[in-house]
Amino acid sequence: MNKAQHDAVKAAPFDTARLDALLDDEGVDVLVVTSKHNVQYLLGGYRFFFFEHMDAMGVSRYLPVVVYQKGRPDNTAYIGSELEDYEKELGKFWPRVIETAVSTSTGAAQSAIEYIKGLPGPVRKVGVEAPFLPWDAAQALRDGLSQCRIVDAGFPLERLRACKTQAELTQLREASERVVASMLAAFDGCAPGQTKTEVVDRLRREEVGRGLTFDYCLITAGTNLNRAPSGQRLEAGDIISLDSGGSYQGYLGDLCRMGILGEPDAELADLLGAVDEIQQRARRPIRRGATGSEIFAAVHELVDASPHRAYLDFMAHGIGLISHEAPRLIDNESYNGYDGARPLETGMVISIETTMKHPGRGFIKLEDTVAVTDTGCEGFGDQGRGWNRAG
Amino acid sequence: MNKAQHDAVKAAPFDTARLDALLDDEGVDVLVVTSKHNVQYLLGGYRFFFFEHMDAMGVSRYLPVVVYQKGRPDNTAYIGSELEDYEKELGKFWPRVIETAVSTSTGAAQSAIEYIKGLPGPVRKVGVEAPFLPWDAAQALRDGLSQCRIVDAGFPLERLRACKTQAELTQLREASERVVASMLAAFDGCAPGQTKTEVVDRLRREEVGRGLTFDYCLITAGTNLNRAPSGQRLEAGDIISLDSGGSYQGYLGDLCRMGILGEPDAELADLLGAVDEIQQRARRPIRRGATGSEIFAAVHELVDASPHRAYLDFMAHGIGLISHEAPRLIDNESYNGYDGARPLETGMVISIETTMKHPGRGFIKLEDTVAVTDTGCEGFGDQGRGWNRAG
Repeated sequence: MNKAQHDAVKAAPFDTARLDALLDDEGVDVLVVTSKHNVQYLLGGYRFFFFEHMDAMGVSRYLPVVVYQKGRPDNTAYIGSELEDYEKELGKFWPRVIETAVSTSTGAAQSAIEYIKGLPGPVRKVGVEAPFLPWDAAQALRDGLSQCRIVDAGFPLERLRACKTQAELTQLREASERVVASMLAAFDGCAPGQTKTEVVDRLRREEVGRGLTFDYCLITAGTNLNRAPSGQRLEAGDIISLDSGGSYQGYLGDLCRMGILGEPDAELADLLGAVDEIQQRARRPIRRGATGSEIFAAVHELVDASPHRAYLDFMAHGIGLISHEAPRLIDNESYNGYDGARPLETGMVISIETTMKHPGRGFIKLEDTVAVTDTGCEGFGDQGRGWNRAG
Repeated sequence: MNKAQHDAVKAAPFDTARLDALLDDEGVDVLVVTSKHNVQYLLGGYRFFFFEHMDAMGVSRYLPVVVYQKGRPDNTAYIGSELEDYEKELGKFWPRVIETAVSTSTGAAQSAIEYIKGLPGPVRKVGVEAPFLPWDAAQALRDGLSQCRIVDAGFPLERLRACKTQAELTQLREASERVVASMLAAFDGCAPGQTKTEVVDRLRREEVGRGLTFDYCLITAGTNLNRAPSGQRLEAGDIISLDSGGSYQGYLGDLCRMGILGEPDAELADLLGAVDEIQQRARRPIRRGATGSEIFAAVHELVDASPHRAYLDFMAHGIGLISHEAPRLIDNESYNGYDGARPLETGMVISIETTMKHPGRGFIKLEDTVAVTDTGCEGFGDQGRGWNRAG
């Protein structure tokens, strides 16, 4: 423990002016942040080990909370669990106020309420993360801050994270490269007779061995289009798709690569070539100032002319601390296409994915990650994009 | 896909009569279950790969939902994500009604509302898990089911899980044994100069290599009582404590073992011996029919007479799909001691932990897992309880 280090005033590790402007747009005076990804972001990359998996504990749950007052970054507070006293001793936090509360959602909320009541200036509107604020904590906030309006503030937090810093770009590159390296090792370990679950277990170990947290893996083998890990056994000649997410220091790599237990015939080479061509076409318009819709326009021209168009699907979405974040490029029930007509910015990171559910040959897909630059885009983890010989 | 298998009526994989009785006690007509651990329990061990880590996705989150109507197990429904259609194809579910919704908390809530509105009979009181129901989903339920009272039903769900089945006991034994085996391998890999973070990374790989999900690890080295992974380097002669949680098929192993880079001197042997004696004494009263308070009485007698009592701490808590579940043996802010005066039942599983924060020699702790039997208790993962020579 280094007391001097702990007591020193540290600068906020994110763009507080930008956050303040975003909060102004919403009229939010104080943020109560409870999602692990936004807590990590506001704490400058801090991750307690409970961020990996844990939430349920005892009769309630672990709920980390960052309180941020607009225009007053010095008043930022973090409320964690008692076990985070050890992290405090190590000087891991930039906010001066670090509280540790009992590990319940209402205990954390009560600490936040007491803290907010002591803040200077009027606090009229409190922004929370509605999908990440437990109901009992929300009720406590409403009762304890009865003078305040409580509103969802997920949007400003998402916008704050939209353009990645150089450090974040490095983390996303590492995540992507390590996921792909893990996939190539998993393909290497494939053999006829293995089950899809065994292949996923191997991939999990490869990712963890490379310092990643394994998030998930979708897998197909042969001509079967079912993507769940299962007891289905690999057979000689099978094509294999691995679509996996793994995170490095919280930042997600999410890519898809193809393997084959044998040699691809001419048709398979053409099919993956067609998928690859769409992926390359999607990258072409990407640069600072281009709009999200330009990506889709470029791709659709190619897809519409394809003999495979009936079973081809293209998708693009932002990626960072979570899968599917800003820029929001598509327009459906879960993601309004907020960025579709807005210019891309340098430092945005985009996952592009082309899926071919071929009725005769099986599931063929590539998913890549690209970062927007001033003049174009840069691929992260661009290895292994052809047919990887498995086994 | 095996359609016959999927369409067959499957029996509920838990004691529905017991759940119905527990819901009767609370007057709850319908349960809306949204925690991963209780969803897994009610689905008979089903775990989608998002259960490991994922929640945040796009502008919202993944929220699995089980709807259960008291007295009508055939009306059980599961609402998952679109990716779980693959699991449905594989016949993984026992409920006949499986819906997949957009991956947002409000989307899942809307599906639950529509389903509940179609249920026969009056639905007056809906039980939810307040710490695991997002605020926006709770608002949707309140608005969509405006005729119903919405109450917290965490308690009946916790009681339902309190006594483990034979299959669950096997899973908990596996989890405990694999965590301990991973610790012994991690001790083996220790050497002076390594950091605590490196030791934890090794432990993580060992756990994952044994089919576990790594949950967390607290670690101390030498005489430093700080338990966070950090850059602190191991030195020759250091004692090392590893307190780690890892889960096997969702079931948690949570144990603590001691290592030493060298040979323990007589005092260290005595200190760990004193901790071990308390752990053994704690086991003595445990059997079906004993009360939780008997465990504490047995231990306190020994602790009170110890020359180390000023820095000795004993704790006991139930363990299963989550850490710190029923039986609730201690009485503090987060866990009322509900089971303190109630008889233990066969199949309950208890974690017992004795911690000595020795001011001169460092952090010395044992944590064990025991299952309550008709005539006593049975340790899970009782290996490596002495000084494990590290390196």
